Amino acid sequence: MTNSNPLDKNVSSDLVFAVDLGGTHLRAALVDQNGRIRFRFKQNTPRTENPDDIVQAIVAAVRSCELDGAASAVSVVVPGTVNVEKGAVVRAPNVPSLNRFCLSAALERELKLPAFIENDANAAAVGELWQGAGRGRHSLICLTLGTGVGGGIILADKLWRGADGSAAEIGHMAVDPFLGVACPCGSRGCLEVYASATAIVRMAREARSDYPNSIVRQGDDLTAREIFVAGIEGDELAQEVFRRMGVYLGVGLANLINLLNPEIIVLGGGVVDGWKLFEKHTQQEVAQRAFPLPAARVQIARAECGDDAGLLGAARLAFASQLDKLNRL
Amino acid sequence: MTNSNPLDKNVSSDLVFAVDLGGTHLRAALVDQNGRIRFRFKQNTPRTENPDDIVQAIVAAVRSCELDGAASAVSVVVPGTVNVEKGAVVRAPNVPSLNRFCLSAALERELKLPAFIENDANAAAVGELWQGAGRGRHSLICLTLGTGVGGGIILADKLWRGADGSAAEIGHMAVDPFLGVACPCGSRGCLEVYASATAIVRMAREARSDYPNSIVRQGDDLTAREIFVAGIEGDELAQEVFRRMGVYLGVGLANLINLLNPEIIVLGGGVVDGWKLFEKHTQQEVAQRAFPLPAARVQIARAECGDDAGLLGAARLAFASQLDKLNRL
Repeated sequence: MTNSNPLDKNVSSDLVFAVDLGGTHLRAALVDQNGRIRFRFKQNTPRTENPDDIVQAIVAAVRSCELDGAASAVSVVVPGTVNVEKGAVVRAPNVPSLNRFCLSAALERELKLPAFIENDANAAAVGELWQGAGRGRHSLICLTLGTGVGGGIILADKLWRGADGSAAEIGHMAVDPFLGVACPCGSRGCLEVYASATAIVRMAREARSDYPNSIVRQGDDLTAREIFVAGIEGDELAQEVFRRMGVYLGVGLANLINLLNPEIIVLGGGVVDGWKLFEKHTQQEVAQRAFPLPAARVQIARAECGDDAGLLGAARLAFASQLDKLNRL
Repeated sequence: MTNSNPLDKNVSSDLVFAVDLGGTHLRAALVDQNGRIRFRFKQNTPRTENPDDIVQAIVAAVRSCELDGAASAVSVVVPGTVNVEKGAVVRAPNVPSLNRFCLSAALERELKLPAFIENDANAAAVGELWQGAGRGRHSLICLTLGTGVGGGIILADKLWRGADGSAAEIGHMAVDPFLGVACPCGSRGCLEVYASATAIVRMAREARSDYPNSIVRQGDDLTAREIFVAGIEGDELAQEVFRRMGVYLGVGLANLINLLNPEIIVLGGGVVDGWKLFEKHTQQEVAQRAFPLPAARVQIARAECGDDAGLLGAARLAFASQLDKLNRL
């Protein structure tokens, strides 16, 4: 089913393989043109210095997703900067064996299918526009608040990837440039050091001694999820941490609203579980800082595709790319 | 020459009328398809509560620019938010009689020519891409550092105007959100309160008492230009003011670079005369804060079209719009 020539691809197929290559897990799915996931598969991402090991793991995952129908492409989500035109990974800190590797070409050789790659946060934005909170919109900014903060920017129905594929680093917009916390990127006061899961844990630790009665644990293995649960139960430390996070996030969103006047901003990632604790503070900050016209327009919404946003976005990009090539024939 | 029916417009003409409607002056020009200004005219903008007075002033200015050749359109730069599709001014604080006025329709009636309108900072970005510092680029961000700070964003050769025509309010990106100076927009620490001519004068006044030997005057009519001249002559107060301005500007530019990964950022407006005094500090801040890949890519350049950027951009947009309509026939 997967042995057609990439240059002679079956554009009439309504199925593609989507692969979400994370630092920990490699997930694959067979996705149809309506955004339904027909089959899915998950395994650990190989820890390796050899990019071919990654290629073979992707190939095996794709083979596990084969059903009766023919899939017409494979589309891979990569946690890092990619060159979409060349199908090359520029830099992927969590899968370093892929740095400067032409992943698309290797997959096309192995699978005899056209292969596409995309940055993970960009793919999530596309997934949310296609099947999630952004359905029917034309301009969308997606923030993924996870271990770090990723971003994807869609304007006039198109991903804006930037001149080098490195646009939408929303986590590294400064929201407290001078007195803020130093960021591993080398700057100071980046959104990521206030709105990521890592930041939630750090802020809770920093403020712990001011809240001796807090139920938040003091162990090294404290998680953002525990802090969220404590906040829901009324813990003041946890609530203060999410208030701070919400304020900084609001500063960042107001900047995005004034700069880009988007129809919707979609917030995804694990930290968004704390929505009830931070949303009010974020909205307050946006109301104070953003211009009235774009602030009235923008919807700030929770992501709806969960962990599948990247897979769905990758599938959508493959379908769109095939359609685009067909239209150019 | 100007009595053709707008619906039957002479798309083969290589001339358009461009009008830059400022709060103080109304400038008109006859521009050819190579970006050459064949004739120009300037008068005061009427102070009036009647939008028809503005329309008649534009008509008179355009008539003054008529030469032997036929112009195929009129394209007007407006200092405010506009709805380009409807040809309507949404809000123009310095020409308030035009608020909610359908300027394009009124001009088409009077001049019997297709009429276009555009925001002033957007038009300047297009002018710089076409005939200025951005020639040959496809993504450009233009900041106009004047009385206020305006912005225009061009991505993949297209202006990004936002869902409501209010995008690119770069002057109202917060660069010192918490301890910064209150901004008339209601927010705090906006780029405009550090990088506009108004801000240069305010910062000089605020710091004046710390520099008793400064040659900077203490009068109410102090200008940013005087402060720049003092800085070039070695005045420490003036140099400190431009250093601060440069640092804040660098914070803002680093944000733009991380968000949009543009090929070039063009700085225009009167404050850019102080380039020698602030450029080093801006570049330093960008180097510390922006990601290496997009920071290495971006060129930060002075505008080259001067006061004509808006006129040229307006002309270009009219030519492009006509071509676009022709291609859709």
